[in-house]
Amino acid sequence: MRHFTVELEELNQKLLEMGGLVESAIHRSVRALVDQDRDLAEQVIRDEPRINRMEMEIDGMATRLLALRQPVARDLRFLTSALKINNDLERIGDLAQHVAERALSLMHHPLVKPMTDIPKMASMVQSMLLKCLDAFVNSDEPLARSVLLADDEVDRLRDAVYAELLATMQRDPGVVPAAVDLIFVARNLERIGDHATNIAEDVVFLVKGIDVRHHAEQAEKV
Amino acid sequence: MRHFTVELEELNQKLLEMGGLVESAIHRSVRALVDQDRDLAEQVIRDEPRINRMEMEIDGMATRLLALRQPVARDLRFLTSALKINNDLERIGDLAQHVAERALSLMHHPLVKPMTDIPKMASMVQSMLLKCLDAFVNSDEPLARSVLLADDEVDRLRDAVYAELLATMQRDPGVVPAAVDLIFVARNLERIGDHATNIAEDVVFLVKGIDVRHHAEQAEKV
Repeated sequence: MRHFTVELEELNQKLLEMGGLVESAIHRSVRALVDQDRDLAEQVIRDEPRINRMEMEIDGMATRLLALRQPVARDLRFLTSALKINNDLERIGDLAQHVAERALSLMHHPLVKPMTDIPKMASMVQSMLLKCLDAFVNSDEPLARSVLLADDEVDRLRDAVYAELLATMQRDPGVVPAAVDLIFVARNLERIGDHATNIAEDVVFLVKGIDVRHHAEQAEKV
Repeated sequence: MRHFTVELEELNQKLLEMGGLVESAIHRSVRALVDQDRDLAEQVIRDEPRINRMEMEIDGMATRLLALRQPVARDLRFLTSALKINNDLERIGDLAQHVAERALSLMHHPLVKPMTDIPKMASMVQSMLLKCLDAFVNSDEPLARSVLLADDEVDRLRDAVYAELLATMQRDPGVVPAAVDLIFVARNLERIGDHATNIAEDVVFLVKGIDVRHHAEQAEKV
């Protein structure tokens, strides 16, 4: 039987590999949208099953280690966090696929609005994802906490995108279908930010053993 | 130390209690929308922190049992499924809260369209949730599988709602903000259906030990 430490390290590596795939998917889906690049959008959609298979593989590894190794304390937190982070990464992969599908639907339309806020949202959520994966690898709690703060900025940008698109639709009903696609893109990017936030919360839990989920409302109750 | 069976039963009960709260939240949020009932919408928003606290409590129970009891086989699957189902229920609670927020935003607008498809979607996803919780309690695999099929019908209804709302916005730009709210309501209900599907997949895994996630694309690969 191999060393438990080696198995945990393999699981760690696998999660990072999955993080890399998901990060590329976000990047490509938004480039596909901005550059109206059909090939890139199709690549994201084609690669999604690979992310799903990797999720099931990681789930299998973590569950097997829980069963066979009877971990305690930090190792137990690592394995339960791995299950959750895995799930969040898979959902981010789904959301990137949705963005790619909207990019395809918008391929032959002229752009509704200059594409500035949406790529900005995209680079913010990509940076959140990179940071929370870094924080996970290095058990860097302050870095994980910085991701929790960044999420508010993403929400602010989303509000700006919505307001602008609603006004555009009211002025020019012809753009309604394309503008609704963009509203969903902004919504998907915001949700990617939410999942990165979940991962950051899991990292804080892993490092400190404290549950910071639903932090805002808990702070209210104190 | 109490019997493990008793502790598992407590966890089971707690999950069902959470399922009940979440189910009421869906029901109330859609009634708030259809009847333009502000009190009901506010009640859903007020009750959401309770669902969040229950999620953390269930998470704590399941993780503690994983650590202390070193479960194997079905008990291990039960505990890992409990963690996932718990997470899906909490997200359904969030989605019901989003519906309640849209209901508040629509409170003083005349209805954009006769409310038939959205309540129909709502009663479908409520029935999916009831069925998957029933299937969970009774280890009823055929019932869980019936939920997987129902999800396609929810998606079909959502497409119909979208198409109708897009057409309405193009005819009458004045309704754009209200129609976008309704598009999000339909999207939230569809996602509640997705989470019920996740729970049904976990139930099949629990009963049979087979992973049926990403089933469609796996079937394609066979």
